Amino acid sequence: MNAEIIAVGSELLTPQRLDTNSLFLTQQLNDLGVEVTTKYVVGDNRDHVADTVRRAMSRAEIVILSGGLGPTEDDVTRDAVSIATDRKLVFHAEIADQLEQRFRQANRKMAEVNRRQAFIIEGADILPNDRGTAPGQWIDDSQTSIILLPGPPHELKAMFSRQCLPRLERVVPRQVIRTLLFRITGMAESDLDQTIAPVYTKYANPVTTILAGDGDLQVHLRAHGSNESDVMALLTEVAGPIETLLGDRIYSRNGDSLEAVIGTALKKRQATLVVAESVTGGHLAQRITSVPGSSQYFLGGFLTYSNRLKTDLLGVSEEILQTHGAVSQEAAEAMAVGARRRTGATFAISVTGEAGPEPAENVPVGTVYIGLADASGCQVAHRVFFGDRPRIRVFATQMALDLLRRKCTLVL
Amino acid sequence: MNAEIIAVGSELLTPQRLDTNSLFLTQQLNDLGVEVTTKYVVGDNRDHVADTVRRAMSRAEIVILSGGLGPTEDDVTRDAVSIATDRKLVFHAEIADQLEQRFRQANRKMAEVNRRQAFIIEGADILPNDRGTAPGQWIDDSQTSIILLPGPPHELKAMFSRQCLPRLERVVPRQVIRTLLFRITGMAESDLDQTIAPVYTKYANPVTTILAGDGDLQVHLRAHGSNESDVMALLTEVAGPIETLLGDRIYSRNGDSLEAVIGTALKKRQATLVVAESVTGGHLAQRITSVPGSSQYFLGGFLTYSNRLKTDLLGVSEEILQTHGAVSQEAAEAMAVGARRRTGATFAISVTGEAGPEPAENVPVGTVYIGLADASGCQVAHRVFFGDRPRIRVFATQMALDLLRRKCTLVL
Repeated sequence: MNAEIIAVGSELLTPQRLDTNSLFLTQQLNDLGVEVTTKYVVGDNRDHVADTVRRAMSRAEIVILSGGLGPTEDDVTRDAVSIATDRKLVFHAEIADQLEQRFRQANRKMAEVNRRQAFIIEGADILPNDRGTAPGQWIDDSQTSIILLPGPPHELKAMFSRQCLPRLERVVPRQVIRTLLFRITGMAESDLDQTIAPVYTKYANPVTTILAGDGDLQVHLRAHGSNESDVMALLTEVAGPIETLLGDRIYSRNGDSLEAVIGTALKKRQATLVVAESVTGGHLAQRITSVPGSSQYFLGGFLTYSNRLKTDLLGVSEEILQTHGAVSQEAAEAMAVGARRRTGATFAISVTGEAGPEPAENVPVGTVYIGLADASGCQVAHRVFFGDRPRIRVFATQMALDLLRRKCTLVL
Repeated sequence: MNAEIIAVGSELLTPQRLDTNSLFLTQQLNDLGVEVTTKYVVGDNRDHVADTVRRAMSRAEIVILSGGLGPTEDDVTRDAVSIATDRKLVFHAEIADQLEQRFRQANRKMAEVNRRQAFIIEGADILPNDRGTAPGQWIDDSQTSIILLPGPPHELKAMFSRQCLPRLERVVPRQVIRTLLFRITGMAESDLDQTIAPVYTKYANPVTTILAGDGDLQVHLRAHGSNESDVMALLTEVAGPIETLLGDRIYSRNGDSLEAVIGTALKKRQATLVVAESVTGGHLAQRITSVPGSSQYFLGGFLTYSNRLKTDLLGVSEEILQTHGAVSQEAAEAMAVGARRRTGATFAISVTGEAGPEPAENVPVGTVYIGLADASGCQVAHRVFFGDRPRIRVFATQMALDLLRRKCTLVL
């Protein structure tokens, strides 16, 4: 079954505001096995809203509108749905009375405009609103259920959960839905897709989605079926070959972030970590310490943005800086080794590079060297990222974390 | 003139993701005097997208699509617009060659699927993408301009600003629109609103908007009119009293971030800066170094997440740590003074605190001390923030930056 969601309100078409009700509604609908196929944001224009409702009705079995049920002239949802469904609006005196009573209890006089909220579309079921003044409405119109909900999130959520969900559960064909998630790093989105497309494109169920951002990739598999064991069998059938193809580029199967995976591994090893950051300027440490409890393994480190501090704090020799430059394999190694020596940590990771905007040090913008030192020595990895300054910095942290992940999640 | 915006991507129909590109686009269009009347989010379904494009074309003079231009089978925007406009897709060998060259420069082999990105709709103008692989496209189809932009925000923003805006400016009927922006910190959103509402609520033009996030506030004034001097007079009439009311809580009038304002002030003074971070774990330095050219004044610093490194690297005495604790005025002072002494920087700023989730050190979660040392001594500021771990950490960096801003932007 498919749903479309229409958010009504001109304020949601300004540069400052987003419709977030649809995220809640999507989660609830997906959990029932209903897909959301289109979302709309429409201003407070009766004809635009009516036109959008008509379109959604022609495409989906469930159409949910949020907002535009208030008392002012800008609140056009009732009128618009009345036009789209060709049903009259009927005044319900008992709703007006309840509203009036509500205002009286709050020691306020009800403004006349509030009576607008007592108009109900012919044949609609009234959804009482115990958190606000505007009642919701539910209309079954031939093939489509049209649900009108108030815009304020706490009103919408309560009304949907208590009144709409139980009713939808009776309508939507029962099915079991299960998801699997792989988190992956160290490859481009297009490479990931090319690698696993031969597997997943053979299946419409599970649905496979690839998400990418900042060098971090996710593969979501979502399967549905009539019983748990069928659904799990479907998921395994697709997930198995994907796991084999991706191997250790998968860093998480439970949703954990890269920094959390590293934290778990370091705690298990009772190992400690320090950093020596140049180009990333604190970003690497910030990600590491974003994990609650990271003080158990993260000691701290050095921000050696200037050459002088590379020498003073980490003992990177003048000779290295002059011969090879601060952005070099030699500098990355000296930084990591120096940081480890001065703190006694199990692992030290260093990042040096050039994020631009201006090239410097005779290396192209995007050049990054990562050093990883432990008791066995120091390895250095090198990459040239393209993109702007923020992108280069975040890719450098991702690469550093992944290098550490591969080292510290090795079986002891 | 009206615009409709279509975000393409099934991932934007999941409970986890929102289309935020439309906020940027709306801002840019509004600044030209173009209203956004409907926004859509449509999944990776060619026919749905084509159908939506057709509808938008029948309603608006400008239709902007974002996303779905990538190399994979899921990327349906090119095909969909080709169907909606009844125009062929034409392969451009020179685009494929450029792509291949780009991959080669990054020492990678281009996956074959990337050639999909070289298909251009017949009659479209190509919008080169210097931040990614997918070129944009611009089609003038009878009454409507259809603009295809890549989904990644940094690619979309650059392409729209540099290539689409100048072109739209020639098409959109001229009216004068001017905006003023104040950036403010050190007060709550509700306090800000209560302070300035008596001024701005008297005016429908300019429109006043307050935005808040992470302890950082913005007041936007947007005025329109037929000529420059009228519009500027309107803006000044409202901005003047607002400036008086807010005083030095305004840190920027040109949009510059707090970290950029600090950078400008430090360069002017030829001063240098180091940090000593505990609770913020690198976040403060990351913000400072996000400013291009920050290496001119930022030397680096110390990440002293553990007590041992506070002692070893900064010389915070065992006595302070035992008597007062690592989260104390005394520790913040010793950290800042120690960091300054060991580096010779003009200013040293320290952050120590407890971000939770578990309380520790006998201080409530949210406790933060900031130390700011210079030649004249060290001042320490103290706050207890409420909220979760990420919120406490970002508010701590904001407070540290503002303390430094107030110090280093003082007239010499």
